Amino acid sequence: MRGTLAREPRALARLVSGVENRTPGWEDAMKALYPHTGKARILGITGPPGGGKSSLTNRLTAGLVDRGHRVGVIAIDPSSPFSGGALLGDRLRMRDVSTAPGVFIRSMATRGSLGGLCQGARDVARALDAAGYDLVLIETVGVGQDEVEIVKAADVVAVVCVPGQGDGVQALKAGIMEIADVYVVNKADRDGADQVAADIGAMLALSGEDTTDREMVFPTNSLSGEGVEPLTEALLDRAARVEHAPERVSERAREEVLLLVEREIARRVRAGLAEDPRLESAVEGVVTRRSDPYSAAEALLGLFGRMEVVTGE
Amino acid sequence: MRGTLAREPRALARLVSGVENRTPGWEDAMKALYPHTGKARILGITGPPGGGKSSLTNRLTAGLVDRGHRVGVIAIDPSSPFSGGALLGDRLRMRDVSTAPGVFIRSMATRGSLGGLCQGARDVARALDAAGYDLVLIETVGVGQDEVEIVKAADVVAVVCVPGQGDGVQALKAGIMEIADVYVVNKADRDGADQVAADIGAMLALSGEDTTDREMVFPTNSLSGEGVEPLTEALLDRAARVEHAPERVSERAREEVLLLVEREIARRVRAGLAEDPRLESAVEGVVTRRSDPYSAAEALLGLFGRMEVVTGE
Repeated sequence: MRGTLAREPRALARLVSGVENRTPGWEDAMKALYPHTGKARILGITGPPGGGKSSLTNRLTAGLVDRGHRVGVIAIDPSSPFSGGALLGDRLRMRDVSTAPGVFIRSMATRGSLGGLCQGARDVARALDAAGYDLVLIETVGVGQDEVEIVKAADVVAVVCVPGQGDGVQALKAGIMEIADVYVVNKADRDGADQVAADIGAMLALSGEDTTDREMVFPTNSLSGEGVEPLTEALLDRAARVEHAPERVSERAREEVLLLVEREIARRVRAGLAEDPRLESAVEGVVTRRSDPYSAAEALLGLFGRMEVVTGE
Repeated sequence: MRGTLAREPRALARLVSGVENRTPGWEDAMKALYPHTGKARILGITGPPGGGKSSLTNRLTAGLVDRGHRVGVIAIDPSSPFSGGALLGDRLRMRDVSTAPGVFIRSMATRGSLGGLCQGARDVARALDAAGYDLVLIETVGVGQDEVEIVKAADVVAVVCVPGQGDGVQALKAGIMEIADVYVVNKADRDGADQVAADIGAMLALSGEDTTDREMVFPTNSLSGEGVEPLTEALLDRAARVEHAPERVSERAREEVLLLVEREIARRVRAGLAEDPRLESAVEGVVTRRSDPYSAAEALLGLFGRMEVVTGE
């Protein structure tokens, strides 16, 4: 903890692993760190697989470090049943910046319990924040509810599209459009890039969003680096502007607290039922169709004590 | 309900809408239907956006209907903030089969509460089952935990890959490989199709899975229809073989019941806290950093009564 605040990379790496794996004590460490957080801005980079998000993140990181920022990168990878963790291959492309001073990179696997990923990413981002990384890039596949939750926790969200993924772009923009701050058309040298940019423009016009005062669509080529500079500027500009919209901050805090409460209660419920023979007989009733899942769940709910909040201070 | 069992399409459509939107009474309808379910086989079709899943599903459906099956299709689409529901455009391509007798198609949006999508898809599949559709195809983007949960509920899972989505295929296969029964290399006329098939073969060899007795990789062209026939045969063959692995059936029932219990408890917790001033003061403590989210959640947990299962029969 002290090592993390003193910006020792190895102490931070240990802390992040502990937080990610929920090693006993992680919660105490997070509690102790919390007063030292709130300075970092979180940038979410999202988009379908194959869009060049990793190399774009690499480029962005390099540019931000050049500008004097300390940059933390959290890459959310689908979990692999072989490695039991994040895919190494994908990360190898990050090697350009991964050894630079002022950069800390961590891959996180998507395994684990439903909804747990979002809290995990939030906690790791917080650890990076406390360790003095003033910008945290979270790179994630933008499909799936969990992933959307993660980018919702970002201050600025860039959605990365590429030409030739017609369905992908459409599906993505629909799911994520309401939280996108900027759109990146990567691989902009490819055929169809102009069309993708035009489609996004049309969609923005349709949504009635007022974009007159700011550029929303950025063509880039993450391999050559073309277009990354103006994108970087735009992201920093947006990050500086978010400056604590108070309702947004409250709303996020409320949601996090409620999710922590829900998750812990769910854990206790599961633990309580795990050994109970009444769960097994309920399951058997469902399997044999003497009962049904909905009635079985109702009956088990009756086994728990009052769920009302205890009133009176 | 009676209309659904009598296979009246309009009655089924109404029921499905009610189940999907959780209209009051949906749970009673599901309880009443449940004894009439368990006959359908669920086929999961999954893969990254842009892989041609919709047209493949279209082709598969047509082939299955030709063989005398009644086919229900559930297409999971990312929610659109414009339509407030599933994307119409994507579905338009299904028009070939959507008016055929013996076919019922429903798009489901991914909006809604975390984890709710999976239960919703399960319930809709059950309604189709009760209405005499002996095969239910669930088509979904295979990235994201929710989507993985959905395909886990399928009896047979086909993962659709395409050439030229290097990252996509890698990310996808890693996340979903443990539940894939067959792999489809769609757009097999494209450059690189052989390489994708070879990659999948190598991955299967690496995993130590014994594939000597069955074909695992199917090249298709969902536009021309090439390769769809052997894929259809393989899916039917797998569907016939799953025939009630009893542990798998129990495990699924247990998981569903536990999730229903958890979700209802979470709902009650949220409802109980929504109006409580102690939630607001906890949130304020987090925002001002007098407190932290973890301690705030602990304090709120203390407001609830005993969470232990009431012991004794």
